[in-house]
Amino acid sequence: MSFVKEVSSWILAGINGIIQTVEDQEVEKMIRKILEAKKDKILLLGTGRSGFVGRAFALRLMHLGFNVYVSGETITPALTPEDLVMVISGSGTTTTVVAQAEVAKAVGSKIVSVTSHPDSPLAKVSDEIVVVKGRSKIDQIFDYEGRQISGEYDNAPLGTMFELSVMVFLDAVIADLMHKLGIHEIDLRKRHSNTE
Amino acid sequence: MSFVKEVSSWILAGINGIIQTVEDQEVEKMIRKILEAKKDKILLLGTGRSGFVGRAFALRLMHLGFNVYVSGETITPALTPEDLVMVISGSGTTTTVVAQAEVAKAVGSKIVSVTSHPDSPLAKVSDEIVVVKGRSKIDQIFDYEGRQISGEYDNAPLGTMFELSVMVFLDAVIADLMHKLGIHEIDLRKRHSNTE
Amino acid sequence: MSFVKEVSSWILAGINGIIQTVEDQEVEKMIRKILEAKKDKILLLGTGRSGFVGRAFALRLMHLGFNVYVSGETITPALTPEDLVMVISGSGTTTTVVAQAEVAKAVGSKIVSVTSHPDSPLAKVSDEIVVVKGRSKIDQIFDYEGRQISGEYDNAPLGTMFELSVMVFLDAVIADLMHKLGIHEIDLRKRHSNTE
Amino acid sequence: MSFVKEVSSWILAGINGIIQTVEDQEVEKMIRKILEAKKDKILLLGTGRSGFVGRAFALRLMHLGFNVYVSGETITPALTPEDLVMVISGSGTTTTVVAQAEVAKAVGSKIVSVTSHPDSPLAKVSDEIVVVKGRSKIDQIFDYEGRQISGEYDNAPLGTMFELSVMVFLDAVIADLMHKLGIHEIDLRKRHSNTE
Repeated sequence: MSFVKEVSSWILAGINGIIQTVEDQEVEKMIRKILEAKKDKILLLGTGRSGFVGRAFALRLMHLGFNVYVSGETITPALTPEDLVMVISGSGTTTTVVAQAEVAKAVGSKIVSVTSHPDSPLAKVSDEIVVVKGRSKIDQIFDYEGRQISGEYDNAPLGTMFELSVMVFLDAVIADLMHKLGIHEIDLRKRHSNTE
Repeated sequence: MSFVKEVSSWILAGINGIIQTVEDQEVEKMIRKILEAKKDKILLLGTGRSGFVGRAFALRLMHLGFNVYVSGETITPALTPEDLVMVISGSGTTTTVVAQAEVAKAVGSKIVSVTSHPDSPLAKVSDEIVVVKGRSKIDQIFDYEGRQISGEYDNAPLGTMFELSVMVFLDAVIADLMHKLGIHEIDLRKRHSNTE
Repeated sequence: MSFVKEVSSWILAGINGIIQTVEDQEVEKMIRKILEAKKDKILLLGTGRSGFVGRAFALRLMHLGFNVYVSGETITPALTPEDLVMVISGSGTTTTVVAQAEVAKAVGSKIVSVTSHPDSPLAKVSDEIVVVKGRSKIDQIFDYEGRQISGEYDNAPLGTMFELSVMVFLDAVIADLMHKLGIHEIDLRKRHSNTE
Repeated sequence: MSFVKEVSSWILAGINGIIQTVEDQEVEKMIRKILEAKKDKILLLGTGRSGFVGRAFALRLMHLGFNVYVSGETITPALTPEDLVMVISGSGTTTTVVAQAEVAKAVGSKIVSVTSHPDSPLAKVSDEIVVVKGRSKIDQIFDYEGRQISGEYDNAPLGTMFELSVMVFLDAVIADLMHKLGIHEIDLRKRHSNTE
């Protein structure tokens, strides 16, 4: 097997391990919050690769008929207390993301965060969190040397495992939402952009 | 007067000259199309600096309560024949923009373009155009040498005069729309993003 | 097991199957082209979720020290014949992406595409392709009914399997590039944005 | 004269008045900082319409050969103490912008801000500021009623006068930089994107 395929299998096994340890209760609460926001707005927050994962999820929520926005893009309307803010941040410490979550909190919007760290500043400002492991910004201080030697970081550097796990996990959440809303793939096609 | 201020005044005089030569009828038709799209969707198309001018306009349309989207951003839903596509392109020849306008045309959406060139491929695919001068991609072939010597291009290179003229012109269109819709600045504040 | 976890495992098994069928030779050629572009520029092309996957890859290439750009963002310089264009499109038919690839081809830049369809317009304009299955825009016409009944599409609608497979695959390519370039995770940290 | 043209002329006169009151010394210091960053990196910060104005400026800086980045886009490398951060914010209070400027300050990067408010949190964290009037977030509390009645806000709502003034002003700065660097329009064409 080529090195690329070997690493791929190793990454996929890692993702599966990470997703299987997510608390079912946290997932259920997140899905409930999303369904409750069907008549209101959902705003996705996240930077870097977590931001791209958030946008990929936002695009599917749009296909499902949700009224969804992405922070940092042109059209980001004012939040209200009825709206849902979904945040993706492995470390839970990204400056701008935490700053925006705090403002959303002050407005009264609901905040659901996906993060590796339940004790992070982001987790503290959130109404609900879904812990997805893989982003070791905090524990790296302790075990960095050992893991560095093992080369583990070089096969999935920085937040790679977190980002990939959340990407797959949120696509499974989309499948669950389709199920609960009685929406089929053929319905998504109708809302898919036809000008790209 | 400093050079920067001198150039600013020269640019502003140029913009005024350009805007005063825009056909009133074309402006009225554009405004009518925008008002007719109030219940449907508006999609802004444009690349580079024309794209930023389009986004600045889109943001204000959102503040006025329009359902507006920007091509290339995450949330760009499928177009329908009822929707309005607004295109900004000085040359009217930008590959991706013309390609998208053609797809929108095939869908049946209305297309209103702001361009310097009424004979461009973009103009041909448009239902209405507003000619705003300043982008000399075509005539440059003939008079480039003379204007290059005069240094005119160095004070407002490439599409600068077109982009600035359209930016000011579209903000005046916003004022007109506010007037016609009975919307005041205080209403805009309510829709202004509160999480940035 | 919850439905979300069940679907996640099903998706991950699917991704593994897809990646294991990628031709090693195609991957090697792609990696060689990337390494050859180390002194020049790399431009990522893609729209929608494929575009986000491309950006996630671009971000890592930047961390590895490549001079990389993303189409549609502010800073996209002129291409030269030495530059590499990497395109991600499952169907290989996306209008704007094909239009841009054709322009890049005319400039003389190298084009490497990741697509499900080796016979697509995109594949035809490419110097090298890496076939990653999962995007069934063409075969869907024939077997749509059968697969629709099986519900397969509802668990991974539209291009989901393609996008996720490419995301994981390209992260494995990053691991390979790190290996070949002798770069370690600690080097990436230095180039990671410190203002977000 | 049509209402749109009337408002355009009124806006342009306003912009000219605003630019003529900018302190020449502040402009000179800003230009010096930009020229000093020629070998290093420049990062543009700003949200909403100020962000679009910043991107339009960034695009021209790229055309002039500067190594420039825009916050919030994919490729935003780590800042160093040698780098220059340019911020555009009328109010000088935008949460995420101030948060990022503070991080950049901690890194040791130089910060030059364009703002209406020399006493704002943003101004305080900046090495140099250029005051461009037009954004009345603070004084509006006192005179809002009077100006609301006069309808002034409805012709140029929210930050319109600030954004347009900075857009024109920064294009005049580009002309000055071209002059000082001995760059002509024809040189810009070579760096202009050829794939859009």
